[in-house]
Amino acid sequence: MKFDRNVYLSNIDLNEAKEKMLEKFALELYKPKTEILTVDDALDRITYKPVYARISSPYFNASAMDGISVIAKRTFGADERNPIALKINQDFIYVDTGDVIENPFDSVIMIEDVIYVDNERVKIIKAASPWQHIRPIGEDIVVSEMIVPSRHQINPFDIGSLLCGGITEIEVIKKPLIGILSTGTEIIEAEDKIEEGKIIDSNSRMFIAMTKKIGAKPNRYKPIIDDYELIKQRIVEATKENDIVVVIAGTSAGREDYISSIIKELGEIIVHGIAIKPGKPAIIGVINNKPIIGVPGYPVSAYIVFSQIVEPLIAEYLKTKEQKKEIVDAIISRRLVSSLKNLEFVRMKLGNVSGKLITTPLNRGAGVTMSLVKADGVAIINKETEGIEAGETIKIELLKDIDTINNTIVSIGSHDVIMDVIASLIAERNRQSSLSSAHVGSLGGIMAMKRGETHIAPIHLLDEKTGNYNTEYIKRYLKNQDVSIIKGVKREQGLMVAKGNPKKIKDVSDLVNDNIIFVNRQKGSGTRILLDYKIKELGLDSAKIIGYEREMTTHMMVASAVSSGSADVGLGIKSAAVAMGLEFVPVGEEEYDFVIHNEFLEEERIKNFIEILKSDCFASELKKLEGYSIENAGEIVAL
Amino acid sequence: MKFDRNVYLSNIDLNEAKEKMLEKFALELYKPKTEILTVDDALDRITYKPVYARISSPYFNASAMDGISVIAKRTFGADERNPIALKINQDFIYVDTGDVIENPFDSVIMIEDVIYVDNERVKIIKAASPWQHIRPIGEDIVVSEMIVPSRHQINPFDIGSLLCGGITEIEVIKKPLIGILSTGTEIIEAEDKIEEGKIIDSNSRMFIAMTKKIGAKPNRYKPIIDDYELIKQRIVEATKENDIVVVIAGTSAGREDYISSIIKELGEIIVHGIAIKPGKPAIIGVINNKPIIGVPGYPVSAYIVFSQIVEPLIAEYLKTKEQKKEIVDAIISRRLVSSLKNLEFVRMKLGNVSGKLITTPLNRGAGVTMSLVKADGVAIINKETEGIEAGETIKIELLKDIDTINNTIVSIGSHDVIMDVIASLIAERNRQSSLSSAHVGSLGGIMAMKRGETHIAPIHLLDEKTGNYNTEYIKRYLKNQDVSIIKGVKREQGLMVAKGNPKKIKDVSDLVNDNIIFVNRQKGSGTRILLDYKIKELGLDSAKIIGYEREMTTHMMVASAVSSGSADVGLGIKSAAVAMGLEFVPVGEEEYDFVIHNEFLEEERIKNFIEILKSDCFASELKKLEGYSIENAGEIVAL
Repeated sequence: MKFDRNVYLSNIDLNEAKEKMLEKFALELYKPKTEILTVDDALDRITYKPVYARISSPYFNASAMDGISVIAKRTFGADERNPIALKINQDFIYVDTGDVIENPFDSVIMIEDVIYVDNERVKIIKAASPWQHIRPIGEDIVVSEMIVPSRHQINPFDIGSLLCGGITEIEVIKKPLIGILSTGTEIIEAEDKIEEGKIIDSNSRMFIAMTKKIGAKPNRYKPIIDDYELIKQRIVEATKENDIVVVIAGTSAGREDYISSIIKELGEIIVHGIAIKPGKPAIIGVINNKPIIGVPGYPVSAYIVFSQIVEPLIAEYLKTKEQKKEIVDAIISRRLVSSLKNLEFVRMKLGNVSGKLITTPLNRGAGVTMSLVKADGVAIINKETEGIEAGETIKIELLKDIDTINNTIVSIGSHDVIMDVIASLIAERNRQSSLSSAHVGSLGGIMAMKRGETHIAPIHLLDEKTGNYNTEYIKRYLKNQDVSIIKGVKREQGLMVAKGNPKKIKDVSDLVNDNIIFVNRQKGSGTRILLDYKIKELGLDSAKIIGYEREMTTHMMVASAVSSGSADVGLGIKSAAVAMGLEFVPVGEEEYDFVIHNEFLEEERIKNFIEILKSDCFASELKKLEGYSIENAGEIVAL
Repeated sequence: MKFDRNVYLSNIDLNEAKEKMLEKFALELYKPKTEILTVDDALDRITYKPVYARISSPYFNASAMDGISVIAKRTFGADERNPIALKINQDFIYVDTGDVIENPFDSVIMIEDVIYVDNERVKIIKAASPWQHIRPIGEDIVVSEMIVPSRHQINPFDIGSLLCGGITEIEVIKKPLIGILSTGTEIIEAEDKIEEGKIIDSNSRMFIAMTKKIGAKPNRYKPIIDDYELIKQRIVEATKENDIVVVIAGTSAGREDYISSIIKELGEIIVHGIAIKPGKPAIIGVINNKPIIGVPGYPVSAYIVFSQIVEPLIAEYLKTKEQKKEIVDAIISRRLVSSLKNLEFVRMKLGNVSGKLITTPLNRGAGVTMSLVKADGVAIINKETEGIEAGETIKIELLKDIDTINNTIVSIGSHDVIMDVIASLIAERNRQSSLSSAHVGSLGGIMAMKRGETHIAPIHLLDEKTGNYNTEYIKRYLKNQDVSIIKGVKREQGLMVAKGNPKKIKDVSDLVNDNIIFVNRQKGSGTRILLDYKIKELGLDSAKIIGYEREMTTHMMVASAVSSGSADVGLGIKSAAVAMGLEFVPVGEEEYDFVIHNEFLEEERIKNFIEILKSDCFASELKKLEGYSIENAGEIVAL
């Protein structure tokens, strides 16, 4: 085992890495592999050579009118005073549109200009010029004419023209075969039973989809354990069987990161370590003239490296034109700190608010796959950038269609599972519309509204003095703003505890017991404000609550902490407790409403939103969940 | 046979027709058909319901660092003066990044902050806060969290997140099955032997490709002859077997246009005749609640009706978001006359010339499939428009990527098969670049250059007085313009005659013989100018040349007329005669060069073009053709 523990990662620029890679494989790429396909199967494929017509289309001179075909010369001199008589089968024959013009006929006279004499004869009073009203052979395509050039991507109407030109098979660039291999002792298949310590292999199956989408052919291997010799053997096979090999995980410089050593043993490392974030510990190598790309195991890193390194390489094999992603300018709503040393790919939400595209960064963790699912685009932040200030305009590479983004309702604020219900109802009702929710707590939502980032802000904020929900906070924080409340739902808040309530927790006062571990929500969330209100009301000391400092950002995260046993109790909504199979000790009912700027009330998408809140479907969906009641959902309360 | 001869087409607006259609099928569309697929197979499909996570990801609390896991409470109070000693397996255990945090441990201390004492013990000098350096359960996805909403199109990173959330199968909207049926006694398959009077069925196979591209499932039937009962029977079957039926041809109101009568007999006609051009005689009908769309047989009409009527209908079944085509503003270079009564779809070329997008209409014939192959976009001209003046800015719906268009070399002028050779060499050398040629004759090219429509204009124009090629014409027509010549090739012009030269044609003077039928080129073409020069030189009377008025726009069209026997002779280049298997009687050698504005000489794409002209590949490709010689190809001659 020649495992090299002294591996240091370089930090070279992405473009430099790509150039090194393409230079290395220039010879392989010069003469592409090809295959012959039927024209029908060649849809979306790239031609290897120009394709020339084998026959003309139309294949014959055809009448372009209903009428008679004549010999033009014999009609010369005809006029109203000197009509010329023509004899059937000798001087003329009747033709319909599309009929063949037989020799010796060379012209067509429209039936409207033909004077019927008897079954044998007609008269004409105007000469026919040669080839009038005839669709000539090759009007569309002449035999040997080029239909499509080299390196042309075949689309549906190309197929039509190729068939018209007598072409039924063409030579196209062969799809490169991409070997995809996950490594890691902890890796299991999604179909396997999950256990602690195990990680589902999602990367290789995401890569299958990415490979298909770019037009190459995926060839996935079963994940294998971290065993140097085993991985080496599989890599040897894979570089024989595929055109490009992608190995997932073990690409860094740690104890069990074997990939770079194996590539070094079998071939050559071209690049190890690229100045991108996420995705730095990527490897570009070569074994037997085949490219082998090492991709880090964190899913977002994996995605970035595949799209930035593997996809451009595949495109070179396929000879497709580079598909530039659509780029938009958007105003960033919060300061974005960036890493000076790396080109950074930050997943962003986008919303069209008051006619402006507003963008907000999502979770930047390389392990948070949902940051990609939720992203509308990616901000690519250059190395030298120290950070981007709120209010600056930045370029965003779109992951979604701009029309979709422009039709999306942006919601930023408190979390509730009903937001998912509403999102689905909106999408089912109108396929052009959608709802995008960010969960930053109630106060976070109010701040987002103040910054003009959002259409609506779901909140549930209890005023200590009046005991009122929401209105007092809006008056305090959105003083001079022209906002209203759209009434939402009433929901039960309470203590979420394990099944059977083993610690016998009855109310908030039990939280100070030193055998009870609590899990909290983040500051600014309505639930945290409710908790602190209750603590104050009961005269408790929060410093005595174990776990008071441990903050989660959603009800589901709190429920999950209780469910996993890492906490005994947390405060949250009943629907989250029920969803997670927990018991629920009610603390009170609260009002979960939506703040909205009045200017949005006239927008079609907001009208849709309000309609959904008032609808029977929404009411019946809520009944399936527990802990909600509806009184006046969708009602607008002016402030 | 209930064939109805009194059918009149309506002329209703496209949008009205679509509304009527969608209204009719509103009930069918309300509840979509679905199917369950593996997540991997669900790529690009639309979810029917929201999808919620079955497990959390990560599934366990995992160490985010290499270090030791501890019980936070036991570390409280540690500082430099009062270090706390911890015992292995009791107070701490060693963990690597990703390891499970086992009960009762609830915090991780980085290895850098741990002081080694002996194999059993370590010391720490700083308290650990609970849950520090731990990646909590559900950090990415919490069980029961919504991963994707209803009506969401699955992309590769959705697949990643779904697998991480324990989802291996999902319910998606089923692809509608589209029955495609060509009708017409003259219709044959592209694989059959072509004969006069026969037309290759290209439409149904173009529709297969269009159906696949939009994400539905094609179900093509063999073409059938124009027999009322036969077509009726097939339509009955097709409406049973498919979700939507598309019938091609026979949709107008003529003698053998059975489709509307059959639909009336079996169901109901919703629309017959839409105010679009091409595509007017379209039918929207319903049989047993299934939509049946009648599409006219001319290929461009068929394409327009499929994309304007069938595709939006399929999109409703699929619940995909509408994919708006990219639209650009372009300056139209020539007057475009339009039909007042119809919404017109005009295929357009586009070129980025001097930083402006210039657009030129292509052949508007509904039978010219190559107008779609060559088109970069479509101008949609409103009904009320009388016409568009040269120089006006119009909107073009793109058929190609705008980057591709911006990287394309525009050539307008004389036709030569070497333009196809150059186009292919350019595409093979640089996959981002391409050459787009329009053949309008040499003088047409010079005019296009004057109007700023083109980068280069290939010409071969003989000056009568000096006997010089090209320079005199440029001086005359492009007087104050800053242009040069890029030298091209020398090529042989001559008389193209049938194999064996049956009419014994020896030179141009034979053309006046009254047993010889000539076919001419259009005015303004270099070849026509050469002919007229020769006629004048020989003192001939062009009125005596039979067929002098019959004009073709390319050498290949002339060769095709001779090859098909509709003419005995035409003037053209040797390579065209050879390609068509004709004999060639040389008339002279001419210079085929490229006019270019000097400002373009610095552009990368033009440099590529010149490089190709100078290359060995070009020379060797020319050798394969006949009738060319190269002396100074690629040389720039200032004027």
